[in-house]
Amino acid sequence: MATESKPLFKRVALLGIGLIGSSIAHAVRRHGLADEIAIHTRRTETLDKARELGLGDTYFSDPVAAVDGADLVIFCVPVGANKAVAETIAPALRPGTTISDVGSCKRVVINDIKPLLPDGVHLVPAHPIAGTEHSGPEAGFAELFKGRWCILTPEPDVDADAVERVAEFWRRVGSDVEIMDADHHDQVLAITSHLPHLIAYTIVDTATELGGDLQKEVIKFSASGFRDFTRIAASDPVMWRDVFLNNREAVLDILGRFTEDLTALRRAIRRGDGELLHDTFARTRDVRRGVIDAKQA
Amino acid sequence: MATESKPLFKRVALLGIGLIGSSIAHAVRRHGLADEIAIHTRRTETLDKARELGLGDTYFSDPVAAVDGADLVIFCVPVGANKAVAETIAPALRPGTTISDVGSCKRVVINDIKPLLPDGVHLVPAHPIAGTEHSGPEAGFAELFKGRWCILTPEPDVDADAVERVAEFWRRVGSDVEIMDADHHDQVLAITSHLPHLIAYTIVDTATELGGDLQKEVIKFSASGFRDFTRIAASDPVMWRDVFLNNREAVLDILGRFTEDLTALRRAIRRGDGELLHDTFARTRDVRRGVIDAKQA
Repeated sequence: MATESKPLFKRVALLGIGLIGSSIAHAVRRHGLADEIAIHTRRTETLDKARELGLGDTYFSDPVAAVDGADLVIFCVPVGANKAVAETIAPALRPGTTISDVGSCKRVVINDIKPLLPDGVHLVPAHPIAGTEHSGPEAGFAELFKGRWCILTPEPDVDADAVERVAEFWRRVGSDVEIMDADHHDQVLAITSHLPHLIAYTIVDTATELGGDLQKEVIKFSASGFRDFTRIAASDPVMWRDVFLNNREAVLDILGRFTEDLTALRRAIRRGDGELLHDTFARTRDVRRGVIDAKQA
Repeated sequence: MATESKPLFKRVALLGIGLIGSSIAHAVRRHGLADEIAIHTRRTETLDKARELGLGDTYFSDPVAAVDGADLVIFCVPVGANKAVAETIAPALRPGTTISDVGSCKRVVINDIKPLLPDGVHLVPAHPIAGTEHSGPEAGFAELFKGRWCILTPEPDVDADAVERVAEFWRRVGSDVEIMDADHHDQVLAITSHLPHLIAYTIVDTATELGGDLQKEVIKFSASGFRDFTRIAASDPVMWRDVFLNNREAVLDILGRFTEDLTALRRAIRRGDGELLHDTFARTRDVRRGVIDAKQA
């Protein structure tokens, strides 16, 4: 394991420079994790913004030039964009390069990227469970990953040294690293993250349809519960579109269960079944205690 | 309007001493709003706890004794308990007494209490929009209402001085006071508070049904969205049972709209309709901006 003072990588290429990409750039610099930070993003104005903010050392509109000579390449684009980017850069990747990403769905990352990689290139998918409601290169900050989980989902046959170097990279930026199977990751995150976001988007959208004065009052009195949902529902629309398109089965499964449970409560309200309502509401308190005990509150 | 230094009431009787009742007790003392705080609660151990905490000046297991000589009586019990308490105390109420409450549904409060009141007793229902996930007399604190809304829903024929004194009471504990029609209150709160709580209870309950290892992982990785729901779903079960039983129509109406909207998103996920998902997710960001502009974030 490398010591804290020595860079882990020579050249880190960040493909995409939104909230997560720019936060990685800040953290790599802060902790001295690489000799060089190479930044690629598709849109000229975003690349100019990254340059203006001084996020990297070198800037490329061509992803092939960005990955040239990089020993760590991190895909920081919405998961739906991974495949096209991988197709472009794959021929330029040299043996020994490690490829990682930051997507919220992991099976699709392996399915989309792995078949395109040349022999000797290591794929170590990563999901830093961190974010804010803000997007874009201005939104990043070095502390985003501190004290947060980062889940790695390498296939069993991936080079152990590459996995350890990516794990060490995330530990150095302050994260707790967990390694799990990609399918299992997708199932867990469908419950802890994807369904909550879908629900929050829905409830806020339902409120926006009310129109006029009622909508103003909903905003005015939002502190009574609604407010928390608006924060979640302000997350990046492109990123979340891609999450739902790419973790469809796990999301539809948990959404089906949720809908059943909601229907049961709706029926209890309609029938005036106070006992069922009370028992349900009492049960959920234990979960909160679990969250507090796990120091996640 | 009374000056800050002079008590607004001679004797305030608090019927019920949970989170809200005990917070009112602390705030009345802190701001010198009454000469005497009389506390009643049904359960002996809760009354003993209130006495041990020194929340009031006098303590009564009999609500009739608590309201005797009180010029302000505040119902701080779950809304489902109001009627029985009102039946007990009504014969003992003298003309000029003001009755208020702290319930989350307001039409039912008027329906349950008003017909029982003797002539000359003023009913000024109140809903302080404040709370925490904690319950009971130990949970209260004087600052709970500071900077929060308190909505009053008096009927048009209620004595204007009584309404103003209750409004001033809430302003003195730091709240912003809004006066609105009870039915309109119930409709607005169904959206901003009751539906969000129902949804949060449901999603946490869905997660508890997963069992064993998966549930542990859901708790472990709860920071990705789920955590916020567990906090909301840890609220007092009896209070929330009564909210849903007593604001049934408004809750079922908004729940119907929510379910339609969720079904549309579910269909879009199943069909891979990225455009619909993106458009919905982009629309909801504006509401967040509204919340921030209204300084409710």
